[in-house]
Amino acid sequence: MSSNFDLRCMKRAFALAKLGAGRTSPNPMVGALLVREGRIIGEGWHKQYGGIHAEEAALLDAKARGESPSGAALYCTLEPCSFEAPDKHRRPCTGLIIENGVKNVFIAALDPNPRVNGGGVRALKNAGISVETGLLAEAEEELNRGFRTFWRLGRPFVHIKLASSIDGRIAAASGDSRWISCETSRKQTHRWRSFYDAVLVGSGCLAADDPELSVRLVKRGFKARQPLRVLLDSRLSIKEDAKILGAGEKGGKVIVFCAHNSDAAKRERLLALGAELVELERQKNGLPLAEVLKNLAGRGVRSVLVEGGAAVAGSFLREALWDRLSVFFAPLILGGHFGAVSGFAPRLVSEGIELGPLVARRSGTDILIECEPRKG
Amino acid sequence: MSSNFDLRCMKRAFALAKLGAGRTSPNPMVGALLVREGRIIGEGWHKQYGGIHAEEAALLDAKARGESPSGAALYCTLEPCSFEAPDKHRRPCTGLIIENGVKNVFIAALDPNPRVNGGGVRALKNAGISVETGLLAEAEEELNRGFRTFWRLGRPFVHIKLASSIDGRIAAASGDSRWISCETSRKQTHRWRSFYDAVLVGSGCLAADDPELSVRLVKRGFKARQPLRVLLDSRLSIKEDAKILGAGEKGGKVIVFCAHNSDAAKRERLLALGAELVELERQKNGLPLAEVLKNLAGRGVRSVLVEGGAAVAGSFLREALWDRLSVFFAPLILGGHFGAVSGFAPRLVSEGIELGPLVARRSGTDILIECEPRKG
Repeated sequence: MSSNFDLRCMKRAFALAKLGAGRTSPNPMVGALLVREGRIIGEGWHKQYGGIHAEEAALLDAKARGESPSGAALYCTLEPCSFEAPDKHRRPCTGLIIENGVKNVFIAALDPNPRVNGGGVRALKNAGISVETGLLAEAEEELNRGFRTFWRLGRPFVHIKLASSIDGRIAAASGDSRWISCETSRKQTHRWRSFYDAVLVGSGCLAADDPELSVRLVKRGFKARQPLRVLLDSRLSIKEDAKILGAGEKGGKVIVFCAHNSDAAKRERLLALGAELVELERQKNGLPLAEVLKNLAGRGVRSVLVEGGAAVAGSFLREALWDRLSVFFAPLILGGHFGAVSGFAPRLVSEGIELGPLVARRSGTDILIECEPRKG
Repeated sequence: MSSNFDLRCMKRAFALAKLGAGRTSPNPMVGALLVREGRIIGEGWHKQYGGIHAEEAALLDAKARGESPSGAALYCTLEPCSFEAPDKHRRPCTGLIIENGVKNVFIAALDPNPRVNGGGVRALKNAGISVETGLLAEAEEELNRGFRTFWRLGRPFVHIKLASSIDGRIAAASGDSRWISCETSRKQTHRWRSFYDAVLVGSGCLAADDPELSVRLVKRGFKARQPLRVLLDSRLSIKEDAKILGAGEKGGKVIVFCAHNSDAAKRERLLALGAELVELERQKNGLPLAEVLKNLAGRGVRSVLVEGGAAVAGSFLREALWDRLSVFFAPLILGGHFGAVSGFAPRLVSEGIELGPLVARRSGTDILIECEPRKG
């Protein structure tokens, strides 16, 4: 039975885990805390992909403090790993935990990676360690939703973000050049970008807004890299002076998904500008999104922020390839006859899509409404 | 200087005033409280149009309790009236207050009616009574917004209510036949209907939804009448078996605004069905809304709930003839290709309408976002 004290320790472990935000993918964020007699003797987290694991970091931290982990309790946000593999950078954590004489282990949630997934718990129990799982499991689900979505569905977590007027019109879906949403909401978008592995837009959004798709408005001290920038552009209509191409120093790598029969000369010029091109078979409704996501997953992308435009957002919604929808509603009526304005209503053949529970909160002068797909 | 005790007394007076909701128009709701030595000795409110005023009711209540109002404090949500007129049913309240020896009067807000508007306060002060105004003035503004809008702008308070999917599509704007919004939100709509003098829809909404526009889903014990039902139908396209016409017993009187050149035979048949017809000169964008509102104001209508459809709501927004907008966002994506679905974006020639601050709250499974026009 876990106590209130255990809960506080696990919360602290989550706070440690989050220090790795934006740097660990495709690995998960993990935090670990060593406690003996009500006192923290070691803290660790997974600092970056390829770096040491949280459990090992906590053990090393204890030693650096002159503390012995023997007989201590260990709080891990994720099940400790238990396997060795040629593509793995570190020794299994279970071995280190056992060797160091840790007495109890609290685990928020199991590792969905089939090479672990309960194996870590078994290894610890077999060594006579007392193990309790499930403490703040829902926090782990939220923390590593990209990692978990990948293991559950074989694709990255897809978060669609849009800005809309109260009358359902979106203009600057990218939040960059022509703003519907307020500064607070734009900053939130940049904060998301800083945590996501990739940011994705369609050619319509690119033509209308020419976004840079880099993290700028928020502090990046905690963030080692810019997200991958992904463009869906079946006809390769991107202009060669697009900001997304020119801002190579500031932003992440650019990947352009296009149709097989796209202009070869233009492909060459885009390659010369540093973009990577991926050709896919065009479907009735445009590029095959499931294949786009599969390709991204193969590159280690575990989370994608879809920033528009309307057509791309609508396609992900229609094909049920999404996990979270965030719409910033601005105190504005844009009406039906105003420039680039359009709704984001997807072309549905069915009677509409029922969504999961809506959650609303204030975001500056906007109202942010968020939801996930309806379950069951 | 008003005390915390005074504030509590005034709040009680507002609670009394609200007991008249839906029955006092075109008069305002008013509540009054007589207090002596920290004890309530009389309570009154304006129960219905033509009935006795709140102040007189409180004085009569004190007498019925065997209490003397002499030396007491009176809390009024609205400035006591001070004039006599042939169209007025009661003696001026100021005279009654003075005669009864009331010592102090607390008034939330002045009466905007130019025949009072400060005259009540002056009459009381001239009689040596101590008067303080402004205690919970903003509550009075909200309570009698229809009454105040009429005196400020010469037209009723216009409240536009819509139900939208998250992607900005509205179908059943009336909330009656084809529902986007949840039961809680539909009940809220019926609650509004029970407080408003009139409910207004356009012919598009009527054709799509055939709403009854009566108060049904909420208790009507406190409500003496059904709101006037107003239809904007320039071409007189209403079907003679429309529910709005047949449900005469259940609903309020039906007024149809149509264009001058409408079908005379049909007009006759509608008259025979109990509807009243008003012919107006059709403008470029349809019926002249300012004239519609003026006509309604002339009938004593101080508040109108505009329930759609999209075209009518958009017209009121475009012409800046509105005071409150309430949009129920449902957990639903309707998409662009689904039956009667359309957005409510008005046809604007300008760059959009900036709105006042948005306020969001949960309404069952919907999120209700409300705003007023932007000030200044």
